[in-house]
Amino acid sequence: MKNISISEFKLGRFFLGKLPFDKDLIASVEDFCKEASIQTAVFSVLGSVSSVTLGCYDQKQQVYVTFNEEAPLEITACIGNVSIKNGSPFVHAHIVLSDEKGKIIGGHLFSETFIFAGEISLQELKGKPFERAYDNKTGLMLWNL
Amino acid sequence: MKNISISEFKLGRFFLGKLPFDKDLIASVEDFCKEASIQTAVFSVLGSVSSVTLGCYDQKQQVYVTFNEEAPLEITACIGNVSIKNGSPFVHAHIVLSDEKGKIIGGHLFSETFIFAGEISLQELKGKPFERAYDNKTGLMLWNL
Amino acid sequence: MKNISISEFKLGRFFLGKLPFDKDLIASVEDFCKEASIQTAVFSVLGSVSSVTLGCYDQKQQVYVTFNEEAPLEITACIGNVSIKNGSPFVHAHIVLSDEKGKIIGGHLFSETFIFAGEISLQELKGKPFERAYDNKTGLMLWNL
Repeated sequence: MKNISISEFKLGRFFLGKLPFDKDLIASVEDFCKEASIQTAVFSVLGSVSSVTLGCYDQKQQVYVTFNEEAPLEITACIGNVSIKNGSPFVHAHIVLSDEKGKIIGGHLFSETFIFAGEISLQELKGKPFERAYDNKTGLMLWNL
Repeated sequence: MKNISISEFKLGRFFLGKLPFDKDLIASVEDFCKEASIQTAVFSVLGSVSSVTLGCYDQKQQVYVTFNEEAPLEITACIGNVSIKNGSPFVHAHIVLSDEKGKIIGGHLFSETFIFAGEISLQELKGKPFERAYDNKTGLMLWNL
Repeated sequence: MKNISISEFKLGRFFLGKLPFDKDLIASVEDFCKEASIQTAVFSVLGSVSSVTLGCYDQKQQVYVTFNEEAPLEITACIGNVSIKNGSPFVHAHIVLSDEKGKIIGGHLFSETFIFAGEISLQELKGKPFERAYDNKTGLMLWNL
């Protein structure tokens, strides 16, 4: 029985900041990682969006089913990581959102998701970067460990 | 196109602990931060509450719509940060909760939210503290970066 | 008024990795902690499951109400910690999941929960380990601080 495929990283820089109004969440984080030469990181985001694009992976068909919600929503939880895909920093994040009745939606976070207000905390990790590659078993771009 | 407004922080003390039974979640964290002279931090909480007060920001009217739920609920995720507002440590947190049918509610966390059982992990951050100030574009008290 | 019972920990090793396909989420993390001699940690997981077992604590009856969902679901948020119970590393985690319509369920995470794809980040904490013991007030196995 194969257990976790795991690597140890050193803690790099820690960042706290504000995501830009009306910009795409994923692009903002990826652009920052490129500028700051961050290859590996974990992060979380609090805040709200004016619209969001979500997905759920269809494990049988091996495709993401996506949908868009144009609504002011709180980001009740958003946890993600940064690793390398096609040579560039790539964000993988999942998100949970709530409306004014406390109703919740969530899923795999995609671009077009526009920030109304966003607070990010990001821990850079130093070590051999993880690269994403096609995984036969799941059809996903997983870490090639 | 302005990207993230972000600052680097050094990692300070790391705390793990238990929130007090039947006390207010936000007040407990803020009181601890005052006692321990913590100005900046990120944290998460696991556990359960006996009642919760949630909000969602109305982006057009620029007010929080809040509501209270008196029920035993699991804290399925609660992520927050600590920064300075009016000279004191201030908690900004969002929370997701579930009931005995797995049904979920969530939103911006407000006081009166009473802990049944709570486990907190909190990472202090050392650097120039972030202060909250009124933001014209959103109507929110955002970090004045 | 008693406030937080909290201890300071030093940051130990940081791990990033992949959870094993079709294995139990909790057992995978606990097995890794045993192999790596980790006694205290905080972690989060992103990914998806093929089935999940959730619970909500009945605060009056002092028992967990559990239920199982056999479905491909995204892990939209999973936050947990590791401490000592009966002499061994023990995982306490809560989880939020979403389906292809963005619908969400969540709760206290139990074993039988099978991973389809999982990315874990785990921060080891060094210090006097927390041990779980029966708590009279809540009926839960809480940290004996």
